[in-house]
Amino acid sequence: MSLRSAPAPVQTPAADDHAGEISPFCPRFQYAIELIGRRWIGAILRVLGAGPARFNEILTAIPGLSDRLLTERLRELEREGLVTRTVAQERPVRVTYELTDCARSLSAIICSIATWSERWVE
Amino acid sequence: MSLRSAPAPVQTPAADDHAGEISPFCPRFQYAIELIGRRWIGAILRVLGAGPARFNEILTAIPGLSDRLLTERLRELEREGLVTRTVAQERPVRVTYELTDCARSLSAIICSIATWSERWVE
Repeated sequence: MSLRSAPAPVQTPAADDHAGEISPFCPRFQYAIELIGRRWIGAILRVLGAGPARFNEILTAIPGLSDRLLTERLRELEREGLVTRTVAQERPVRVTYELTDCARSLSAIICSIATWSERWVE
Repeated sequence: MSLRSAPAPVQTPAADDHAGEISPFCPRFQYAIELIGRRWIGAILRVLGAGPARFNEILTAIPGLSDRLLTERLRELEREGLVTRTVAQERPVRVTYELTDCARSLSAIICSIATWSERWVE
């Protein structure tokens, strides 16, 4: 399973669709919720939600996250299509990480989880 | 870290608070997003979002989830304060699982993740 580079068009259900009968289980939902919940992924998406950032800026923003783990997680996010990595032709080389449209469309969800956690996690 | 039985009151920030400067990293957010993303947790919350259900009803709604894993996950959800288990004094004994207020307040988030996955996961 993988993420799209552009969203699927919104489907208008036909009159004879039984929308109410869709099973609560859906592999795409399962994939999405477990992707978002992977260790450090949410925190990285939150940092990049504020705009493109360099490796060290992300590292500084997330206490407890090691160099090695951040490298791993960023590669994973690139592979999944949530982050793009841009290398600017400067000296020294400047590498920035940025959310894709797909990841940006997750921002409101990430914010709601943050708000929920402020109210419910102690 | 654990979930509350009632939500924290909404804080009105004082004029001298620097709300914009809050670090994107927050252990409560981290805890919440990783809790939601744990294997099968989202699917179980989605099934129970439709109303209280018995063990076998949950099991039937989620293909691929085994007896043993559902038992484990439900205990975990009980421990975390997301699900309550009620034993009705009937013969045979009737056990139902139900979302707590805390979990119910997650429903909109769970729905947004489902909608997002329909558009972006292929």
